[in-house]
Amino acid sequence: MERVRYFEDYEVGEARETLGRTITETDMVIHAGHSGDFFPHHMDAEFCKTQPFGQRIAHGTMTFAIGIGLTATEINPRAFTYGYERLRFPRPVFAGDTIRSTVTIGRKAEDPKRPRHGQVVEIVETRNQRGETVMYCEHILLAERRQPADPA
Amino acid sequence: MERVRYFEDYEVGEARETLGRTITETDMVIHAGHSGDFFPHHMDAEFCKTQPFGQRIAHGTMTFAIGIGLTATEINPRAFTYGYERLRFPRPVFAGDTIRSTVTIGRKAEDPKRPRHGQVVEIVETRNQRGETVMYCEHILLAERRQPADPA
Amino acid sequence: MERVRYFEDYEVGEARETLGRTITETDMVIHAGHSGDFFPHHMDAEFCKTQPFGQRIAHGTMTFAIGIGLTATEINPRAFTYGYERLRFPRPVFAGDTIRSTVTIGRKAEDPKRPRHGQVVEIVETRNQRGETVMYCEHILLAERRQPADPA
Amino acid sequence: MERVRYFEDYEVGEARETLGRTITETDMVIHAGHSGDFFPHHMDAEFCKTQPFGQRIAHGTMTFAIGIGLTATEINPRAFTYGYERLRFPRPVFAGDTIRSTVTIGRKAEDPKRPRHGQVVEIVETRNQRGETVMYCEHILLAERRQPADPA
Amino acid sequence: MERVRYFEDYEVGEARETLGRTITETDMVIHAGHSGDFFPHHMDAEFCKTQPFGQRIAHGTMTFAIGIGLTATEINPRAFTYGYERLRFPRPVFAGDTIRSTVTIGRKAEDPKRPRHGQVVEIVETRNQRGETVMYCEHILLAERRQPADPA
Amino acid sequence: MERVRYFEDYEVGEARETLGRTITETDMVIHAGHSGDFFPHHMDAEFCKTQPFGQRIAHGTMTFAIGIGLTATEINPRAFTYGYERLRFPRPVFAGDTIRSTVTIGRKAEDPKRPRHGQVVEIVETRNQRGETVMYCEHILLAERRQPADPA
Repeated sequence: MERVRYFEDYEVGEARETLGRTITETDMVIHAGHSGDFFPHHMDAEFCKTQPFGQRIAHGTMTFAIGIGLTATEINPRAFTYGYERLRFPRPVFAGDTIRSTVTIGRKAEDPKRPRHGQVVEIVETRNQRGETVMYCEHILLAERRQPADPA
Repeated sequence: MERVRYFEDYEVGEARETLGRTITETDMVIHAGHSGDFFPHHMDAEFCKTQPFGQRIAHGTMTFAIGIGLTATEINPRAFTYGYERLRFPRPVFAGDTIRSTVTIGRKAEDPKRPRHGQVVEIVETRNQRGETVMYCEHILLAERRQPADPA
Repeated sequence: MERVRYFEDYEVGEARETLGRTITETDMVIHAGHSGDFFPHHMDAEFCKTQPFGQRIAHGTMTFAIGIGLTATEINPRAFTYGYERLRFPRPVFAGDTIRSTVTIGRKAEDPKRPRHGQVVEIVETRNQRGETVMYCEHILLAERRQPADPA
Repeated sequence: MERVRYFEDYEVGEARETLGRTITETDMVIHAGHSGDFFPHHMDAEFCKTQPFGQRIAHGTMTFAIGIGLTATEINPRAFTYGYERLRFPRPVFAGDTIRSTVTIGRKAEDPKRPRHGQVVEIVETRNQRGETVMYCEHILLAERRQPADPA
Repeated sequence: MERVRYFEDYEVGEARETLGRTITETDMVIHAGHSGDFFPHHMDAEFCKTQPFGQRIAHGTMTFAIGIGLTATEINPRAFTYGYERLRFPRPVFAGDTIRSTVTIGRKAEDPKRPRHGQVVEIVETRNQRGETVMYCEHILLAERRQPADPA
Repeated sequence: MERVRYFEDYEVGEARETLGRTITETDMVIHAGHSGDFFPHHMDAEFCKTQPFGQRIAHGTMTFAIGIGLTATEINPRAFTYGYERLRFPRPVFAGDTIRSTVTIGRKAEDPKRPRHGQVVEIVETRNQRGETVMYCEHILLAERRQPADPA
């Protein structure tokens, strides 16, 4: 649902947690067909038996898409995505794992080129049912300011 | 197909280009259902008519998944993904746009913690049919070395 | 296939049974993505372990869509759907259950506003492999009459 | 997100409106494949040109699934679905239509057999971009009471 | 629905026609993801503009799967598929074309190795809305005989 | 990727093998919805328990689409598909089986009607993880000649 927030309204340290979602073999098959990536690490159970993890693992792009998708419950019409930094997949996701994401406001910064906006960095951490981090990234938002920054 | 490459085999500046793929309304609907992100920017044509772009735009997570998926034609069993940096979406992708990705070896670096591997940074740029960049990221690989680095 | 039937041709008590279909985890994932309903009762296996049923359950809207879809083998160009009454889900559907539907002509009635049509009420009952009813509804059809009803 | 509400907390007349969603040809194809209903009214553009509406129309079961799915943003762990009444499709949905649902608390009632619960009837109306109602139903919830009803 | 037929019951020349189905861009995207074939003839509208047909064309494997799928309305428990011969795609299928299949019993033959079965060859022709054949194949069934063939 | 080859370049006996892919219950559900074939052999686990194989089996059209799709890694702009012969499914494919295809140039022939092309017959054999053949067909290509054939 819509929740209007300006740059000034974000507080470093505030956090929210999403619902959980069980990742299924279906998600892997749909993601392969959607992305076009049919690498054997995701699609060939026999090959995977010979590898360290012993089973098919989720595509990183899928863990990202679903890990971020879980956070898509609040629309802020005063902010938009600038990009992502430090996207990492510390552990694999397997079919049957249940993941949820935590979004924490990590830091705020002026944007030298855009006096009417400020940068808000959301730390997104996606964890599985054992609490292990399976995805980490920094989501950089540009949020409108109620008042333009001083031309320092 | 498999193409074995060690850290030493990558050359800065070498590049490859993928096939093209037309992004469709179908991809947007599938991505919404796959990721769970039904924000009106992607799903509500009436709302989008009131916005600057005038039409539905692709999810960033989809442009990333497909832009990277297009590159999934060569499997190197001696390398794996460490993460991504500087993921950006300079322009939106609309239904009907045709995108393709270019992968360029941008730089190579020692990995201080892993003497048996080196970091290879692939610059991935995804462009539309007008040559405009719609996605940019730096894909960091860890590639095995033929010979371990000197313990400097 | 087409089977032309007028109001007068339906007989109360006649019944037909559909083929069976096994409901899969895939169907649940597709339905979540199709409907946009990612509630944890359907999508979060860990949450469901803490609930009375102990596992993910099918969306009611899916049991309805598939339970009715199973009956879509006969097209009557002389009838159309007016609506549904008393839609109930007496028991949950789990992944792995096999369901089939029975359609019974439950009653017929004049339609006071439409002298050229009559109401036919199909009772649709969907049962699982143990014979338990998992969906019940009354499907109200408006069927053309061979002869218009008397203006009583 | 979770929003705990007991029977006593619902007020007749309160209403909420969902986001909008554009129904696409993709949704129709996915619904046909999901439900198994490939009737020509939904799938055969040539046939539809000979019919009053002139084009393919959405399955009623899809309009229901998505119309209800749009409301799936608030989870009340103190209530569950008992069933639906008076499900109607007053007008067809075409590819390109944008729909949204309004949920209004229509009435509340004791449940003679369940003193610890009460019935809450949500009126769900789904409208297109012209404000025309394309789906109407009454969603019957059983909500826990803070205090059991008097054994009248 | 089930329709029991023995070898002796098939008559050369008998024919049935299926319902029609409009092939959509969605079907092409789903088929690419399902089959893993993302060749530019099916997926890259810009490339196709430079080719003789000027637009994306359906995968042959999809025209086959849907052309045969359209015939899947009658189950004969006394027959099973032996194989297909002479599969051809005389003209391309484009998004927006509406296809239907005709099944004609083309010939019957003894099966020298299986005295309890006979071969029934169904000619399957799939045509578009202009009556042009887009798929042709010969579907070879093995049907049980009421009476075993004479050991000639 | 593109690999230009003329008729003269193909050598009888040359072979290539594809990656492997595990066939899942998801693929069966997607194929049923895509093709419209919901026969109980593919979709009704209870029915299948009473049959010789004891479980659901893949649609032949799916084994064909995926078996051929696996080979879609090399695009030859100088050749196109003429058709397929002798399509057979010697053994069933079950959910959980991992298949891969081998493509062997089986024979080459003049094409009497097309002096600028020649026929190349690729033998496609798809095998499961036990090495058993689950699909066999002969894929007939028409490949451009560097030099037209003599008008014999």
